[in-house]
Amino acid sequence: MHEHECIAGRNAVAETLKSGRPCDALFVAQGETKGLGEIIALAKAQGLAVKDTKREKLAQLCGHAQHQGVVLTLAAQAYADVEDLFIRAAEKNEQPFFVVCDEIEDPHNLGAIIRTAEAAGAHGVIVPKRRSAPLGQVVARASAGAIAHLPVARVANISQMLQELKERGLWVYGADMQGECYTQAKLEGAIALVIGSEGRGLGRLVKERCDALLSLPMNGKIDSLNASVAAGILLYEIMRWRLR
Amino acid sequence: MHEHECIAGRNAVAETLKSGRPCDALFVAQGETKGLGEIIALAKAQGLAVKDTKREKLAQLCGHAQHQGVVLTLAAQAYADVEDLFIRAAEKNEQPFFVVCDEIEDPHNLGAIIRTAEAAGAHGVIVPKRRSAPLGQVVARASAGAIAHLPVARVANISQMLQELKERGLWVYGADMQGECYTQAKLEGAIALVIGSEGRGLGRLVKERCDALLSLPMNGKIDSLNASVAAGILLYEIMRWRLR
Repeated sequence: MHEHECIAGRNAVAETLKSGRPCDALFVAQGETKGLGEIIALAKAQGLAVKDTKREKLAQLCGHAQHQGVVLTLAAQAYADVEDLFIRAAEKNEQPFFVVCDEIEDPHNLGAIIRTAEAAGAHGVIVPKRRSAPLGQVVARASAGAIAHLPVARVANISQMLQELKERGLWVYGADMQGECYTQAKLEGAIALVIGSEGRGLGRLVKERCDALLSLPMNGKIDSLNASVAAGILLYEIMRWRLR
Repeated sequence: MHEHECIAGRNAVAETLKSGRPCDALFVAQGETKGLGEIIALAKAQGLAVKDTKREKLAQLCGHAQHQGVVLTLAAQAYADVEDLFIRAAEKNEQPFFVVCDEIEDPHNLGAIIRTAEAAGAHGVIVPKRRSAPLGQVVARASAGAIAHLPVARVANISQMLQELKERGLWVYGADMQGECYTQAKLEGAIALVIGSEGRGLGRLVKERCDALLSLPMNGKIDSLNASVAAGILLYEIMRWRLR
């Protein structure tokens, strides 16, 4: 499955980087950076990851060997700024309701969370630059098109961002098995809901930044839910409070 | 990705069919049924689907060409009977709580629904013989192991089964956008929750058999949720009523 649309070749990549099209990452053949200074600078200026990659992987990415040592992957959707999320809440005259995805690397899960967030009336999603599934075709499909309607902002440091959200009046809830049962919480006001990766859960620093942790009761033998299912249950519980 | 463990070759397939190991389906090379009468009879006696298949597909399934025209796929878990679900409820001294998956063909969704059903304290899942993802490795992984703890029963006709469940005292809810808002329903007593496929929703006959339809409010521009996310929200709402 091709997760990304790709641009290969030095001229094409340079032109695309200048065009303003939403890009995802730059892949450069190992040991072949000679003459790529401008391209790498353009990519870094946009905050793209620049990845040293084997030539065969480059050919695989773009489907042929005429890549001249450089392949650019395009994003299905441009990232927004966190400010865009606040603007969206203000325009709707609503208290902010954001979803923070802490290192969700599975694109199906990230897409499903974006889809549910849009349906639940959230104002946007925040993801980290590292260890997050890119906004490629898989996320776009799994979101059922929701990434075209809901802003997704990318930040360098999630726990710093949570601090900023708290200072701006949001109450930060983390989904965590150690938390209080989600039906006991008063989910009112401005809220950021933080969802961790399925394997690792919330990072330690991120967890410490949360104002409160919410857990889902487990009535059987398994001890966790799929990340997008857990997110869906919590998002719809928040929605219920907001529609009261 | 190999969804199934496979057995190829006439002797090996016949022995496996007699062994009692949980099997999923029998694939037979087109026009080469000569001498396969016993094998086909054994498979049909277990209720397996017998599928006429091109020789190349057989080789692909088992990874080599020495299949002698016959490949058997194994299930990661044996199917239960619907009676097992009732027994489980009785043993726990609880009102029955079943999940019916109407033609969920995506194994990730089916696995995630089984996982959530187990966590929500349901007594089992019912799937149709046709157009349902087989209980192979993908479903097993997506269920996070829950298919080993929760019985999954396979029936020939879902709408007939719903009629039987109703006669045995269950209230049958279908997840459908035309239904009443799920927060308005009194989700008490013995319940079967029916989830339809993501593309087609509930079949017409199945929908007509439901006692009531439940909908999830959509507050954004997209008009549906991922099937396993929708199932999760409804299952946890039912769980909340049951824990009161």
